[in-house]
Amino acid sequence: MLRGWGVLLKNLLQHGQVLTFREGEMVRYQGDPIDDILVLLEGSLRTEHVSENGKVLEIDTIRPVQIVASGLVFSRDPVYPVNVIAKEDSKILSIPKEKFLDLLMKDRNLLLFFLEDVSEHFRIVSEKLFFLTTKTLKEKVIHYLVHHMNEDGELVLPVSVEELSRIFGCARPALSRVFQDLEREGFIEKKGRRIRVLRNPLEDGKI
Amino acid sequence: MLRGWGVLLKNLLQHGQVLTFREGEMVRYQGDPIDDILVLLEGSLRTEHVSENGKVLEIDTIRPVQIVASGLVFSRDPVYPVNVIAKEDSKILSIPKEKFLDLLMKDRNLLLFFLEDVSEHFRIVSEKLFFLTTKTLKEKVIHYLVHHMNEDGELVLPVSVEELSRIFGCARPALSRVFQDLEREGFIEKKGRRIRVLRNPLEDGKI
Repeated sequence: MLRGWGVLLKNLLQHGQVLTFREGEMVRYQGDPIDDILVLLEGSLRTEHVSENGKVLEIDTIRPVQIVASGLVFSRDPVYPVNVIAKEDSKILSIPKEKFLDLLMKDRNLLLFFLEDVSEHFRIVSEKLFFLTTKTLKEKVIHYLVHHMNEDGELVLPVSVEELSRIFGCARPALSRVFQDLEREGFIEKKGRRIRVLRNPLEDGKI
Repeated sequence: MLRGWGVLLKNLLQHGQVLTFREGEMVRYQGDPIDDILVLLEGSLRTEHVSENGKVLEIDTIRPVQIVASGLVFSRDPVYPVNVIAKEDSKILSIPKEKFLDLLMKDRNLLLFFLEDVSEHFRIVSEKLFFLTTKTLKEKVIHYLVHHMNEDGELVLPVSVEELSRIFGCARPALSRVFQDLEREGFIEKKGRRIRVLRNPLEDGKI
């Protein structure tokens, strides 16, 4: 996500400690306090959210070079909002927060990079929230299909309709109805998870 | 939101320019580039999001002392995601971004305050997003009611069911069905927008 980490990293490495995690190892638990800045150097991490009723939801994959939970590090009572797990063998640079603040004040580029990283994450999360609260379910589904289809207009849903209804924040039957409507109106063909978009409703001006 | 702005502001005022806006005046348009840091000193601002089809959605009220769109100021291509309008006569301190960066590097307290402000906004937006994507519609409605009711378990919906269905990201009929279910199950009484929560399903362990 950030450009030019190279030069900045060289400097950062002197001030932190490199931790190694084996594939599958837990890096941080949801609810753990955020005491240090974690910069993923090698490997990859996955994050999952565990809800009160124990339901686990995959959230994201973190790839190098990225700061873990950068947007929350300096919040008032900072805790990890998700479990962070090594997806493969990984190396992570850990820098104490106070030390990191010192470095931000000394290095304008690092400060800009960090602020940009936080802002970009903020932008992505805000846009998702806008999307979820301002679109009708039908609009969400169409945007999703058009975004995920290949050049021939085909896609295989990566998750079940049940899971998808969670992502869209609606009931499963409501989502099934939208798929049926889109099929009836001749926009898509759907066989199980395999979908072909026949006409793009966004270009049709139909929604 | 931020504590102790007093001392910091005294210093900031020397480096910026105070702008005044009359009630109803447009401060920034959605899509305007974010060129400077705007700190609301007096009055209040409201923000509204205009969607592609021209639909206007009220988003938020900003009160002193707060930075406008702090989470987006340093994103890669920073633009205002909403219209910003003076809700009453208001005074706003404007500081050029480069100058503000200089100040962040000189003043550890200002840096911490700014990072905390951005992180707090990030936390709020992320939590809303988690809420929308991990709860069933019924759970969302119950959380909403319990959060908005008074000590006697009563509330008046501040918006129409239509508007509320947008907030929950569902169709209006689905939301009406949830209200009917909750009434049938003896959790609420509903007359128009006036709702009384008879038993709290969250304490009942029913959801």
